[in-house]
Amino acid sequence: MARVYNFSPGPSALPLPVLEKVKAALPEYADTGMSVMEMSHRSAMYLDIIHDAEARLRALMHIPDTYAVLFLHGGATAQFASIPMNLMVNGVADYIDSGNFAHGAAGEAVKYGKVSIVASSRADNYTYIPDWKGKLTPGADYLHITTNNTIYGTHFIELPEGDAPLVADMSSNILGEVYDIEKFGVVYAGAQKNIGPAGLCVLIVRKDLLGHALPICPKVFNWATQADNESMLNTPNTFAIYVAGLCMEWLQNQGGVEGIAKVNQEKAALIYDFLDNSKVFKGTAQKEFRSVMNVTFVTGDKEKDAAFVKFAAAQGLVNLKGHRSVGGMRASIYNAMPIEGVKRLVDVMKAFEAQQ
Amino acid sequence: MARVYNFSPGPSALPLPVLEKVKAALPEYADTGMSVMEMSHRSAMYLDIIHDAEARLRALMHIPDTYAVLFLHGGATAQFASIPMNLMVNGVADYIDSGNFAHGAAGEAVKYGKVSIVASSRADNYTYIPDWKGKLTPGADYLHITTNNTIYGTHFIELPEGDAPLVADMSSNILGEVYDIEKFGVVYAGAQKNIGPAGLCVLIVRKDLLGHALPICPKVFNWATQADNESMLNTPNTFAIYVAGLCMEWLQNQGGVEGIAKVNQEKAALIYDFLDNSKVFKGTAQKEFRSVMNVTFVTGDKEKDAAFVKFAAAQGLVNLKGHRSVGGMRASIYNAMPIEGVKRLVDVMKAFEAQQ
Repeated sequence: MARVYNFSPGPSALPLPVLEKVKAALPEYADTGMSVMEMSHRSAMYLDIIHDAEARLRALMHIPDTYAVLFLHGGATAQFASIPMNLMVNGVADYIDSGNFAHGAAGEAVKYGKVSIVASSRADNYTYIPDWKGKLTPGADYLHITTNNTIYGTHFIELPEGDAPLVADMSSNILGEVYDIEKFGVVYAGAQKNIGPAGLCVLIVRKDLLGHALPICPKVFNWATQADNESMLNTPNTFAIYVAGLCMEWLQNQGGVEGIAKVNQEKAALIYDFLDNSKVFKGTAQKEFRSVMNVTFVTGDKEKDAAFVKFAAAQGLVNLKGHRSVGGMRASIYNAMPIEGVKRLVDVMKAFEAQQ
Repeated sequence: MARVYNFSPGPSALPLPVLEKVKAALPEYADTGMSVMEMSHRSAMYLDIIHDAEARLRALMHIPDTYAVLFLHGGATAQFASIPMNLMVNGVADYIDSGNFAHGAAGEAVKYGKVSIVASSRADNYTYIPDWKGKLTPGADYLHITTNNTIYGTHFIELPEGDAPLVADMSSNILGEVYDIEKFGVVYAGAQKNIGPAGLCVLIVRKDLLGHALPICPKVFNWATQADNESMLNTPNTFAIYVAGLCMEWLQNQGGVEGIAKVNQEKAALIYDFLDNSKVFKGTAQKEFRSVMNVTFVTGDKEKDAAFVKFAAAQGLVNLKGHRSVGGMRASIYNAMPIEGVKRLVDVMKAFEAQQ
């Protein structure tokens, strides 16, 4: 079957040149006589691979030496528990509830200390980023945000600034938008949206925040222990780190985060502009907070939504069905989605509209 | 470079036909228009893959419906903390300390309850399985063992039987030796030795043991929650599960665990028989407890050890260096190591011996 345009929210499309490199390195990688999957994580050949991935990530995000970069197991969800277990020194943390994952992160943290939901848009089905200004808790150990809300198609357009370190789940827009890493205490992201394959979590932590884990923290969750062991306290997800490194190399060839961020804005604008002029489709997120990565939209009629998803799939545009909590459609247009795919989507939306 | 014989203790060699299947399914898998890495874990196409892997594992290990099979993140080390957090209802557990990983498992458990080391061979550098008979704690929540000790080349030749559920870290001999699953409450294994690629932990748990997790248990560690969500509480390591399924299919074609276990015994016997008659090399583990999966041996002279490792590598037999805590050499001969590789190793040992 011909390659589809895959709008999946995650795991999601990878750059074709990356997949071709993975293929070319099977069953043997370079002159090693084995595949990457078969390499000891402590071998010189594999250490080259993981160090290369870290160096590329540091270059792409301009991460200074005052931050540790960790490649961890478990996806972002494991970090929902790890964060309080590493940071809740005074036993209190602030959370901004801007979506289902933000809500889940707070739900884990209450097991380990006091959680203050300083702002929430839950009652409005998370169609916007709630206003946190003037509401932060003095002396909180940290403030947790989700920079981009995959399900609802919203993102923060202004970062909160306060005394507490800012901890950001950046799973769905890391490497897709430009951020100043020094505004954050911790950035973490499940890999399967904009970094590489599933089963890997990248965590970037300011080094002064290390070393304060609670006694009940499992050692695989202890960031200081992981940093001391260069993410090799136990065997890491070696293959996913390798593919992530290839994706980062590809991204560097696209002009880095700064380069792709412009393309991503163009891509998103193509769909939003169409939505704002459509008689059939309309966006679900408040305009001010519209995500660059996940575009959510509906027709207002469930049967018509389903008909459109089917119509698009027949033309090789797949995984456009929205999350059940929003309904309708969602186009996830991460870095690996080429602008041609987005143009095709708009054309298909126009064709569908013309049939109504 | 030609394919090597890879004796790595883990991540370790995979069957060549599996790697060729992975290669053939890039950049697109079957008629899906995308690679496995790009599939939504909740898509019908991916559910077929994970259900197939589970069915094959159940067939290979004869796992009845009274047990849940989970595909988890984090490797076996994450389970060192998960086990007490799921099972320490009365707050006390027994551990048999037969190696470094067993020791590490107990070291995590003390964070969550009382740990009794009922038997240990640590003082003798773990050259044997210590005798636990008559030493188990009445009323313990579980008894933890490591069935095969990768570093020291030993394995249990008789399973402990007591009132407490038996919890077994089977990372280095799962699917390589025949076990009666119904003798265990929990079996778990990091995938990177005998199941598939790294970054995946398979956990098999008797269903009556589910539902007793401690309040501080992170939800990704909660086996009952994971079972309720069919290992999809969060995005699993989709690619590793796919490759593991291919390895299981390959194993079924080798006559299943019963078939390969015979080959594994033959492979191990070839090396042990040579060692017992060698003037240069000798085994380090006590004969009675010798592992079928990891054969540890030394010359008694560190320089000669290093010379042998180099000599073997020059002939395409790699990763034979032993763990630093034992020294010398270790040949890890898991399922994917063909008997031809073991015969080559014995030939190379003979050739080295002839030069001395």
